Amino acid sequence: MSPSPDPVALTQALVRCASVTPRDAGALGVLEEALSAAGFACERVERGGVGNLFARWGERGAVRTFGFNGHVDVVPPGDAADWSRPPFSGEIAEGALWGRGAVDMKSGVAAFAAAAIRFVTETPPGGGAVILAITGDEEGDAVDGTRALLDWMDREGERMDVCLVGEPTCPETLGEMMKIGRRGSLNAFLTVTGVQGHSAYPDRARNPVHALVRLADRLAAHRLDEGTAHFDPSTLAVVTVDTGNPATNVIPERARATVNIRFNDLHSGASLTGWLEAEAAAVGAEFGVHVDVSVKVSGEAFLTPPGALSDLVAGAVEAETGLRPVLSTTGGTSDARFVKDHCPVVEFGLVGRGMHAVDERVAVEDVVRLTAIYGRVLERYFAG
Amino acid sequence: MSPSPDPVALTQALVRCASVTPRDAGALGVLEEALSAAGFACERVERGGVGNLFARWGERGAVRTFGFNGHVDVVPPGDAADWSRPPFSGEIAEGALWGRGAVDMKSGVAAFAAAAIRFVTETPPGGGAVILAITGDEEGDAVDGTRALLDWMDREGERMDVCLVGEPTCPETLGEMMKIGRRGSLNAFLTVTGVQGHSAYPDRARNPVHALVRLADRLAAHRLDEGTAHFDPSTLAVVTVDTGNPATNVIPERARATVNIRFNDLHSGASLTGWLEAEAAAVGAEFGVHVDVSVKVSGEAFLTPPGALSDLVAGAVEAETGLRPVLSTTGGTSDARFVKDHCPVVEFGLVGRGMHAVDERVAVEDVVRLTAIYGRVLERYFAG
Repeated sequence: MSPSPDPVALTQALVRCASVTPRDAGALGVLEEALSAAGFACERVERGGVGNLFARWGERGAVRTFGFNGHVDVVPPGDAADWSRPPFSGEIAEGALWGRGAVDMKSGVAAFAAAAIRFVTETPPGGGAVILAITGDEEGDAVDGTRALLDWMDREGERMDVCLVGEPTCPETLGEMMKIGRRGSLNAFLTVTGVQGHSAYPDRARNPVHALVRLADRLAAHRLDEGTAHFDPSTLAVVTVDTGNPATNVIPERARATVNIRFNDLHSGASLTGWLEAEAAAVGAEFGVHVDVSVKVSGEAFLTPPGALSDLVAGAVEAETGLRPVLSTTGGTSDARFVKDHCPVVEFGLVGRGMHAVDERVAVEDVVRLTAIYGRVLERYFAG
Repeated sequence: MSPSPDPVALTQALVRCASVTPRDAGALGVLEEALSAAGFACERVERGGVGNLFARWGERGAVRTFGFNGHVDVVPPGDAADWSRPPFSGEIAEGALWGRGAVDMKSGVAAFAAAAIRFVTETPPGGGAVILAITGDEEGDAVDGTRALLDWMDREGERMDVCLVGEPTCPETLGEMMKIGRRGSLNAFLTVTGVQGHSAYPDRARNPVHALVRLADRLAAHRLDEGTAHFDPSTLAVVTVDTGNPATNVIPERARATVNIRFNDLHSGASLTGWLEAEAAAVGAEFGVHVDVSVKVSGEAFLTPPGALSDLVAGAVEAETGLRPVLSTTGGTSDARFVKDHCPVVEFGLVGRGMHAVDERVAVEDVVRLTAIYGRVLERYFAG
């Protein structure tokens, strides 16, 4: 049997694939080669031009199946000239491995792949199975990524009993935080249509901008809740207001805003849509304008209540780092929002600082320690 | 001496020059030819690529000098396909003369030019002078137009004792309204700079959009005054708010708005700038962001108090139309804001409906009647 791969070298190999979402750029091939060599049954699941990789060691329908989930696509590097080192170089310098995706989350994928290969090679679990569900579409629309892969697994009779998503979860120090749920997220697109006119005669027009700023201010000033047992307070950000009117002597016909809401388990996409529509209608009536509200729910809030799975992962983290991770539900969305419909899911991974930023880089030592943590998780799961 | 020109034919000739601001496209030449033929001393005053035409009949420094002011530049026609007739055709149909500038204000210029030519030809005022100050830069920046022409006149020792601006002034019916002043106008450009961040962590960012919509709402909701003896209440329109942030998961660094204020004689550009800066500072402090306020004053409010000049013009209007014009200060700015620094100025002209719009057209009959009104103004002025 081939030797277990070095997680740092594997991360480097992945970073060197310029897999800007939804391109795979060879990254899934790098993983498939390493996993196949270790006895994993691999299957490429292509959907809508997106590549996904399913890999299983052990039998389908095993007594116990542990799953990992992650992604190899990355956000664009922006202007490469802004980087200290080329964004897809994977250079190791100053104790770090540099490049787009070094944190989010090629090192996480490399760590769980290396840990899984080592585990099944050195201490193969009798009657157990390990599944790696890896996507190339997490940073983009995420329609043809993990969701499509999980649907495919359902149809094929492949299932994970539990799943660990390897996204970065730690704010400052490896080990301090894991996630047992996520807030929901939605975007609301508000379009106010008034009546165009000359700025000198505002009485003859109906200014959509005045209605929009009133509505946006009402939404921004509203406190959605005070938080719950496992969730922070919900937040709302008006991320853009736009009119595009270059003429100072013209009152425009239309103005637009986009609102992003991150919500906890006191709300749902439907309840917030109702609230937004009521606010829009009230302001629309006050200003005599029409306000269109179009809502796109990216994910509902969810929680894997603290229990066996979170204890297992937290214990492994503590054994390796000495830190007992806080059970958090903060942050943006991740593919855990899809996994949660299939099996209990938690998330643990690297320090997230620097993700999506210029000069993204990961401490080499952390990649090694994360691999060890994932190894301990597998040992404990199959020992338990 | 050549016969007096027909004001309708002269309007047609001017409309057929596609003098989209600040291009002259031959329009000033059409006027210069007609005026020179009637004995006017003409001078082209070019400034910054803009053409202006100064024409005087009679002696410089005459005992009494009556002035007219107007412009031959027009706003762009937009998509010609939206027009029922080509925008620079000058076609006569359905009792109207069609084309961009037919209302604003080539027919006004044609009317005062034709009236002035007829007057000095048929009843030359002994010891009197008539000046026509015509610009090609009113719809644009207006920096090199009437203002530059008046400065040039000052330097040359040319002066008007009174001036009538031939802009459209009547809302529905020729004769019902003239202007004895104008509100001031300013544009304020607000730029809020916050701290960029991820929408999922609004506490780590400072959202400039939230500050901007609060500020814009405060300004829009504020009632500046209740109007004065000769002025309507001042108005404020937030004409655009812009961020240009395409990413719903990003809180932007910067957001902008433009505010247009039309103000009466209770305010000045300076007093309003002070108010805007105070409001911006208050909201900036509340949100912990920087708000930059840049104000451009297009014109201060001014009034030519009712008296001899307004009585003269109103009397001529009433004699021709049977309507006693209301003395108004409504509407946008005009070049009267420059003339008022040189001599008493009032404005009277056509029905303004349709100006700047598709299918701009003027009733042929109104052009003829306006010419007669301007003729009566000249007769009465020099008889008085």
